[in-house]
Amino acid sequence: MDREESMAESPPTTIFSSAVEQLEPEQAFIYLEMAAEVREKGIDVISFGIGQTDFLPPAPVLEAIKKAVDEGRVGYTPATGIPELREAISEFVNEKYGTDVEPEEVAVTAGAKSALFMCITLLTKPGDEVVVPDPGFPAYECIVRYAGGRPAFATLREEEGFKMTPELVAECLGERARGVILNYPHNPTGSTLGRRDLDEVLELARERNLWIVADEIYDHFVYEDRHYSLLENEDWRDHVVYINGFSKTWAMTGLRLGFVVARKEIVEKLKVYALNVYSCPPSVVQYGALAALEMGMEWFDGIRREYKRRRDLACEELNKIPGVRVLKSPGTFYLFPRVKELMRHVGVGSADELAKRILREIGVVMLPGTAFPLRGGEGYLRMSYALPMERIREGLARLREWVETRT
Amino acid sequence: MDREESMAESPPTTIFSSAVEQLEPEQAFIYLEMAAEVREKGIDVISFGIGQTDFLPPAPVLEAIKKAVDEGRVGYTPATGIPELREAISEFVNEKYGTDVEPEEVAVTAGAKSALFMCITLLTKPGDEVVVPDPGFPAYECIVRYAGGRPAFATLREEEGFKMTPELVAECLGERARGVILNYPHNPTGSTLGRRDLDEVLELARERNLWIVADEIYDHFVYEDRHYSLLENEDWRDHVVYINGFSKTWAMTGLRLGFVVARKEIVEKLKVYALNVYSCPPSVVQYGALAALEMGMEWFDGIRREYKRRRDLACEELNKIPGVRVLKSPGTFYLFPRVKELMRHVGVGSADELAKRILREIGVVMLPGTAFPLRGGEGYLRMSYALPMERIREGLARLREWVETRT
Repeated sequence: MDREESMAESPPTTIFSSAVEQLEPEQAFIYLEMAAEVREKGIDVISFGIGQTDFLPPAPVLEAIKKAVDEGRVGYTPATGIPELREAISEFVNEKYGTDVEPEEVAVTAGAKSALFMCITLLTKPGDEVVVPDPGFPAYECIVRYAGGRPAFATLREEEGFKMTPELVAECLGERARGVILNYPHNPTGSTLGRRDLDEVLELARERNLWIVADEIYDHFVYEDRHYSLLENEDWRDHVVYINGFSKTWAMTGLRLGFVVARKEIVEKLKVYALNVYSCPPSVVQYGALAALEMGMEWFDGIRREYKRRRDLACEELNKIPGVRVLKSPGTFYLFPRVKELMRHVGVGSADELAKRILREIGVVMLPGTAFPLRGGEGYLRMSYALPMERIREGLARLREWVETRT
Repeated sequence: MDREESMAESPPTTIFSSAVEQLEPEQAFIYLEMAAEVREKGIDVISFGIGQTDFLPPAPVLEAIKKAVDEGRVGYTPATGIPELREAISEFVNEKYGTDVEPEEVAVTAGAKSALFMCITLLTKPGDEVVVPDPGFPAYECIVRYAGGRPAFATLREEEGFKMTPELVAECLGERARGVILNYPHNPTGSTLGRRDLDEVLELARERNLWIVADEIYDHFVYEDRHYSLLENEDWRDHVVYINGFSKTWAMTGLRLGFVVARKEIVEKLKVYALNVYSCPPSVVQYGALAALEMGMEWFDGIRREYKRRRDLACEELNKIPGVRVLKSPGTFYLFPRVKELMRHVGVGSADELAKRILREIGVVMLPGTAFPLRGGEGYLRMSYALPMERIREGLARLREWVETRT
């Protein structure tokens, strides 16, 4: 077959750029689809799989969105958001952390995911090494590779509470190290990082001239001590690009609104970048976010207490299951139970196989630790406890029974 | 100064990836900001600058969005949109063009811009040549360069009605040609392309094994004949990636909802891509779009008639201005008057200088043809007639007076 012929048989639209080929689907979504299939067979599925809170956004947020619709606020906004929202975000952050962030240092984005995509690709050049947590949110390493960078995996150890300590970061820094992605409170383990560790990572960044993308999207979901932000270090501007959003705390996952705090020149770059990637964040949702910030955070106390109760229950019930051991993680709404013993007892070879079996056999969705996405998660499951107490109790009872009848 | 020192003085976050450095702001937004400054000086600004219709979305669309908010449809949707919207889009397209597009061949995106960004970067590999129109929408060539491709500029000629004819495309095809971006109805000239030209461009694509990104976002804004789509060619699947959205026709620019029609494997890739770039399109807006499609298109007849009247008025008034000559463009809501004579009379050296002077001196915003973004637009202005008749009349009277007192 000559070249002409081969070309004729393969439409040009089947050959994709190698940058885009670096991107992968999240296994979470694959499990969601499998769960739907199981549900169609009439099985009651209890899903500990999804990273989405089961509460609704506060009523004033929903009202503000509807008001914006009624007022016809449906035109383009500036690419980095309406000025009043940028100002409200800077005030919110400043009040929380005692910082002096200016509105011009805030970019509103179409969700925290697009903030991650743009910030990581803006700062990563081909050949750059970027430290990413393993286990960690799968998009980090995909996006680094999309930008032509090489992920340097920091393997988080259970013995160290899954913390990305300065020592661990230092171990990962090769000659071409340029950046670090720090995600605390941490998905999928629920771990947090303290003031001293954060300061020392920033000190490392100064010594080695690194940027840090700090994904702090779970900042309000902390049940012991409090959340510490990289922004609290007065030198944040030189090294830190801070990412957050309205998806988790305000339960606005599908409404797509996030934000970045960074040096002005980065925010200016993001403006041009966003303009070319998606024009602007959704207009009416920005007014909802404004209302969200105006509410303060007291309304969230009851929700945090409820999540703490759920976490405590889930830990207690998980630890009753033979072969399961779980850390009482201080943050997020995830637990990361170790199931190595269980796997040996039951005779399954991987966390993925285990997750698939419990989904198909008892309708319980937990993601394999390897969905996050490398070796660091083998022998673990990720359990999201973003569902009511009685469902947590029932799901874990099912799992316990399933294990007990097999060991 | 040694290397260490130099690094210490320049924070790592100031050095950006060369891919992102290829992206540029749209001059339209720069003119918007200048217009705001002029307005602040108390000058009544008449803006023919922006690509945004002055009508509101139809009421059922706004109601559907509010209903979705009330029903708490604020969670993640699939990355390529809710199934019912993909199905409605396929039916809408099929009814319009007699095609057999399947729901699995539709990807809902966060606006047509993100569809452009993802499709062009998906199909362009480093070193690929991509034919882009000049003048043309500025994002095309930026995104090609972001992907590492090289734009091959097809200079549209007024004498040919600004048509990207098959002959012109053929002239632009170098050895490394891989793709063509076709945008009809055309921004900024308002030109359209007929059935035969479209078929011949597709034939060229077959011969040379090219992909075509067809941006048909202005498809309903056609005042003579009708709009012809590349999808009407039965071989579209092999070569065409069709892009459209809800921004222009349904006046939803700020709500960010677009869509792609393409072969299944491309849509599958876009799903993974979108997941990593922005997770999903805004959920509640998707229900608005569903309502939009359910309305059919009869409601738009009055709007099209109004735009036709505006176009006719604008052409008549423009042609009265000394040194101005304008084609009565059949599509979009833009005209592309030739102002070379005017520039000579008044003594300005560039369309950009002319545009800035009329903005500052008489508060009339028109964009220089060079905002689109290359040589093909020098000596032209782009005038958007998306504003009421009396404003069009007044703005053009001001311009005429300004010119007459200067010649």
